[in-house]
Amino acid sequence: MIEFRVQARSGEARCGVLTTTHGDVPTPAFMPVATQGTVKGLDAADMTTLGVRLAIMNTYHLWLRPGPDVVAAQGGLHAFTRFPGAIVTDSGGFQAFSLAERTRASEAGVEFASHLDGRRLLLSPEEAMRVQGLLGSDIAMQLDVCPPGGAPRPVLVAAVERTTRWAERCLAAAKPGQAVFGIVQGGTDAELRLEHAERLAGLPFAGLALGGFSVGEPNPDMHRTLEVVAPRLDAARPRYLMGVGTPADLVRAIGCGVDLFDCVIPTRNARNGQAFTRQGRLAIRNARYKDDPAPLDAACPCPACRGGYGRSYLRHLHLAREMSAARLLTLHNLHFYGALVAEARGAVQAGDYAAWARARLAELEFEASDEDHAGPQEDATP
Amino acid sequence: MIEFRVQARSGEARCGVLTTTHGDVPTPAFMPVATQGTVKGLDAADMTTLGVRLAIMNTYHLWLRPGPDVVAAQGGLHAFTRFPGAIVTDSGGFQAFSLAERTRASEAGVEFASHLDGRRLLLSPEEAMRVQGLLGSDIAMQLDVCPPGGAPRPVLVAAVERTTRWAERCLAAAKPGQAVFGIVQGGTDAELRLEHAERLAGLPFAGLALGGFSVGEPNPDMHRTLEVVAPRLDAARPRYLMGVGTPADLVRAIGCGVDLFDCVIPTRNARNGQAFTRQGRLAIRNARYKDDPAPLDAACPCPACRGGYGRSYLRHLHLAREMSAARLLTLHNLHFYGALVAEARGAVQAGDYAAWARARLAELEFEASDEDHAGPQEDATP
Repeated sequence: MIEFRVQARSGEARCGVLTTTHGDVPTPAFMPVATQGTVKGLDAADMTTLGVRLAIMNTYHLWLRPGPDVVAAQGGLHAFTRFPGAIVTDSGGFQAFSLAERTRASEAGVEFASHLDGRRLLLSPEEAMRVQGLLGSDIAMQLDVCPPGGAPRPVLVAAVERTTRWAERCLAAAKPGQAVFGIVQGGTDAELRLEHAERLAGLPFAGLALGGFSVGEPNPDMHRTLEVVAPRLDAARPRYLMGVGTPADLVRAIGCGVDLFDCVIPTRNARNGQAFTRQGRLAIRNARYKDDPAPLDAACPCPACRGGYGRSYLRHLHLAREMSAARLLTLHNLHFYGALVAEARGAVQAGDYAAWARARLAELEFEASDEDHAGPQEDATP
Repeated sequence: MIEFRVQARSGEARCGVLTTTHGDVPTPAFMPVATQGTVKGLDAADMTTLGVRLAIMNTYHLWLRPGPDVVAAQGGLHAFTRFPGAIVTDSGGFQAFSLAERTRASEAGVEFASHLDGRRLLLSPEEAMRVQGLLGSDIAMQLDVCPPGGAPRPVLVAAVERTTRWAERCLAAAKPGQAVFGIVQGGTDAELRLEHAERLAGLPFAGLALGGFSVGEPNPDMHRTLEVVAPRLDAARPRYLMGVGTPADLVRAIGCGVDLFDCVIPTRNARNGQAFTRQGRLAIRNARYKDDPAPLDAACPCPACRGGYGRSYLRHLHLAREMSAARLLTLHNLHFYGALVAEARGAVQAGDYAAWARARLAELEFEASDEDHAGPQEDATP
């Protein structure tokens, strides 16, 4: 199981420690997305170099390939992937909707055809927990119903209701000793979210997540909802905002009391040639970098910047479609996200979060990009 | 410039040190292929971890992209790529024939259309040297004419003649201070090879290479020719067998007195899921590894094996087309090749090469694979 202790507060923002059998995770924390058991382009040693203590892996993908029995036979995801930190697995529901084919949802679960070989599978709450139990993650996510952004209220209400029923089934089916997080739905309807949060808080979940954000709704609507809802999620449990977001999203959400995040933005954008820097985002393919010898960010101590790789070289590697480009930009962007949440932690400890966030958001203003909020939450690579 | 000193001999085999302004390279040495300025999937720090002192990069590719002026403006390939060892650049002639389109060779050089954008270019001996001068490699290769395996004698003779004339033009056009290697052609015609070797030895090349091997000829024909030709290449200069080969090829060729090798086999095969081990080659996609927790080679200290990644996990990564699979297998295979030549060096120093080679070849017998000798010498990725 896990334990969670809040160490300091500054306004609604808080910092703490999530204790797992695979190490302590200082919060707020950002989890890199290791969909198929690896962050694309990195290995477990890179994760240690980056100081990553918590990563998220994908139940849908690992269920289909290599299969939970293969992972279990190797001793679970930790032994299998050699990642030395703690691991969250999502439930797979999101991918069963977004990636699979001929999906049909019912009270029983999500029936779908595998995008790999077309075989028909049923992802029920019980199956989601069985698979996650075999994967052996530290934290399993309940199966939930995640409506698209802008769904009408009856759809949101139905999603909340079914998610609650599935929450109970998931808890009943959970592997003993594995922590389970409940997922609050309700779109951008704060009232619905609060009701759902209260119902889930009544169940013995180890943490509470906010799902169904960054699924197509306008970004300001998400933040307006978070401001009302996040501070009222049970304060004793870790609060996890799923699939979010940009650096600015993190700064704002931490200010509302969120502790945990996962998002493909730093890694997916790295593969597309975008680097996060204190001076703004940098599109490495831009011709202005053709002869630029500077590293991505002169002040950055990540392996790519410290290694002295210049923008000119990184641009060349990216245009030449070399894996090394994806690798180096991924190392850089994950370092950026890790440093951002570490700074936020420091600001909470200093009792100074609001001032820090204001200053940081002014720097990050350019960050808001519709593109970031248009894609799927997960690496969609089949 | 470079210096070369033979330190010990055992039969025709020898070991020595190639001294460059970018460090000393113990020979025999195997150069990883970093076609576009990076070994695919690795970064410069990985090269240091592997102990790579010498790598080969590709003039044709770097000429077309990012262009020699871009590289020169960054201070040459060493500064550009951050690879801390010595660098050989090939002349680009091989790729102008194998990769480019609408190629037309004449005494002036090789005219071709870029495979990237179709622009028409002339790779003359002077241009090959100008480009390599701008790239700033430690060792530039002369432009040569490389007939396919099994070419009739008149074609071989014409290739030798033109290569000799181009040798003189290359030396005349070389950048002061950059070492240049001549390339001996002549197919599997030992007499022609010996004549050509003698003529090139009369020119002030810093080293002599054997080109035009592993271009489609039967593998035993190559070794028969090497046995006659390699020992009679000027003993004072480093001898470089281009584009070769399998581990067994290296063991045999070192026995004939070859000092330097480059080949895509360890890296290309890694990307295709093949690992070299003391127990033979291992095709990681094989179903027998589905549940195998063992590393690629239990006795291997490479980052992939030492990191504890099991075959089951590596198979999963490979089948899921994760870059990490290519990266980990590449680290392993390059370590295998590096360890093989280091062992060979030890055997020469021990005065025991023939016995060592016999024992090693018995282990490596399974290695001979027609497939290895069918492909191009270079990473063909455009």
